[in-house]
Amino acid sequence: MSIAAPVLEAGATIGILGSGQLGRMLALAAARLGFKCHIFAPDPDSPAFDVVRRVTCTDYADTEALGRFASEVDVVTYEFENVPAEAAMFLAARVPVLPDPGVLATTQDRLAEKDFVAAFGIGTAPYEAVSAPAELTAALDRIGRPAVLKTRRFGYDGKGQATIRDGTSAEAAWREVGGQPSILEAFVPFAREVSIIAARGTDGAVECFDVTENEHRDHILKISRVPAAVSAATAEEARRIAGTIAQKFAYVGVLAVELFVLRDGGLLVNEIAPRVHNSGHWTLDGTSVSQFEQHIRAVAGWPLAKPVRRGRVEMINLIGSEVEDYRSWLTIPGAAVHLYGKTTVRPGRKMGHVTRVFAE
Amino acid sequence: MSIAAPVLEAGATIGILGSGQLGRMLALAAARLGFKCHIFAPDPDSPAFDVVRRVTCTDYADTEALGRFASEVDVVTYEFENVPAEAAMFLAARVPVLPDPGVLATTQDRLAEKDFVAAFGIGTAPYEAVSAPAELTAALDRIGRPAVLKTRRFGYDGKGQATIRDGTSAEAAWREVGGQPSILEAFVPFAREVSIIAARGTDGAVECFDVTENEHRDHILKISRVPAAVSAATAEEARRIAGTIAQKFAYVGVLAVELFVLRDGGLLVNEIAPRVHNSGHWTLDGTSVSQFEQHIRAVAGWPLAKPVRRGRVEMINLIGSEVEDYRSWLTIPGAAVHLYGKTTVRPGRKMGHVTRVFAE
Repeated sequence: MSIAAPVLEAGATIGILGSGQLGRMLALAAARLGFKCHIFAPDPDSPAFDVVRRVTCTDYADTEALGRFASEVDVVTYEFENVPAEAAMFLAARVPVLPDPGVLATTQDRLAEKDFVAAFGIGTAPYEAVSAPAELTAALDRIGRPAVLKTRRFGYDGKGQATIRDGTSAEAAWREVGGQPSILEAFVPFAREVSIIAARGTDGAVECFDVTENEHRDHILKISRVPAAVSAATAEEARRIAGTIAQKFAYVGVLAVELFVLRDGGLLVNEIAPRVHNSGHWTLDGTSVSQFEQHIRAVAGWPLAKPVRRGRVEMINLIGSEVEDYRSWLTIPGAAVHLYGKTTVRPGRKMGHVTRVFAE
Repeated sequence: MSIAAPVLEAGATIGILGSGQLGRMLALAAARLGFKCHIFAPDPDSPAFDVVRRVTCTDYADTEALGRFASEVDVVTYEFENVPAEAAMFLAARVPVLPDPGVLATTQDRLAEKDFVAAFGIGTAPYEAVSAPAELTAALDRIGRPAVLKTRRFGYDGKGQATIRDGTSAEAAWREVGGQPSILEAFVPFAREVSIIAARGTDGAVECFDVTENEHRDHILKISRVPAAVSAATAEEARRIAGTIAQKFAYVGVLAVELFVLRDGGLLVNEIAPRVHNSGHWTLDGTSVSQFEQHIRAVAGWPLAKPVRRGRVEMINLIGSEVEDYRSWLTIPGAAVHLYGKTTVRPGRKMGHVTRVFAE
């Protein structure tokens, strides 16, 4: 059903679904390599629109516009995992869509994603599917407390989640996630949170960036540090996990795997993002090739680059009104300031980031 | 007559005159900092148009379009020194134009430029103004052979130049440059050609990138290497020269000074480019801040960054059909490939470049 991935010529046009900062940084990376980009997204107030010549601003259900878009681009990719399946399938019948939309069916559903990972013997926190209050009570008996109830679909930055502690009633948690099909996950006492960004090319080659340690505030990534404070064996295992997931998906492009590191160095997969990822923004300044260029190379059918890290790297997200600090960041030696051009500041909104590279 | 430079807010719009690869890379750097760009240029087939949302594609003499452009942007800058003086002055009466168009009057004229530099005791090759064949003969008697006849205006990449050797007739050289007002320069037996890229902010602060050694083929830059093989004293003198020129112009933005290094380490100014420069492309991958970002910071009234070089750097221009080698460059570890998105390959046309950074 999907169309074989081509090898693009420089100058070809890459279609991008989604128009946030990830689409913007993908388009900037594509421009460096001589590609044109055409962004398709519904929101007129879109940071990615400012850096491309061609935009289509309409709903993802607008099949007439999707058809025109498909005819004007050489390949389609996306910046986010919640692309409506119908739109992805409609496009895939007309133009190569990478990574394959089949991946979305798995990663849009926490249950399918966990089942997929577990099938390859990769560790996850104990979990159970929950689709009614009675099932939640039964699952809590088996998994124990504390546990986290998460909607199967459309969760991000901590949205659609409820932590169930000793005193929490199952009913309250069920209401908190909106009574939607969910999974209950055991609360894992992890030592640290890390992620690994991997790219897989159309030739099956996989390249990983170094394991990144992530610090969240209010469920939103605040700081990434590279390299993560993990052993060589744990780092190697993270690469193996990312490589396995990429190969089993026959993935083309960049994906991110969020992992919990246990006190003994063991790893559990928390989440897969089939896209460039906030915890990979450090690669823009911290390596010889960024996650964005690596993704563009992959979907263009071009060879991946071997990333060479430039030192110890720290990436700080500018969230909400923190973006107003940009002037002071501009004066800090070696700090690279990235602003996404968003016009409205909202609490929790990712407005920009700063990267610092230090000699190791 | 010109309007005081403002301090732009992130999200402001920068107008750029000119739409080649320099405008393109300026716009990409501006986007990273959260600025929008509006490109004004006459050629519909323009690499810079692909990376911005707003373009005005018309002649520089179209004052109606210039007026609209002025009203839609917060500051105007340019990617090339041959901006028509009338257009620059028209804009400068309506919106801040940086660097100040007055600089163009000097740098668009080789004679004025040489006189300007010489006035501050900075060395140049011996030169004389020539505006008729008889003057050329007389100037040749004083300056000697070999010498180079260069048109005062609109020369670049070796165009508008004639080398006068022992056997060359003055008449033939005069015809070769089109019988235009010119200068005759002594042919200096230099050891190497270098350039220095300097930025000056609205606060008067100057930051220089490291001295770059340049290798030309057929009068077109082919390779830049950093650091240049010059003594610390020569490098310091290059910085002093660039800083003096920037201060004397009360310059705001990035400028490049091309210099001849004599066998004794002495320096002669060959040319000033009041803009980002091909010999500074290595800064995109080779330093913590690029010449493009530095220029944008300057014209935005933002503080300049202190460039930190990441190693020994080599920049190779892909000229004409050499661009077809891009696929092999993609597989070379650590090579950063930049393609300008130009649709037509022509001999001598700059199509892209490759940067390599090596541990020092």
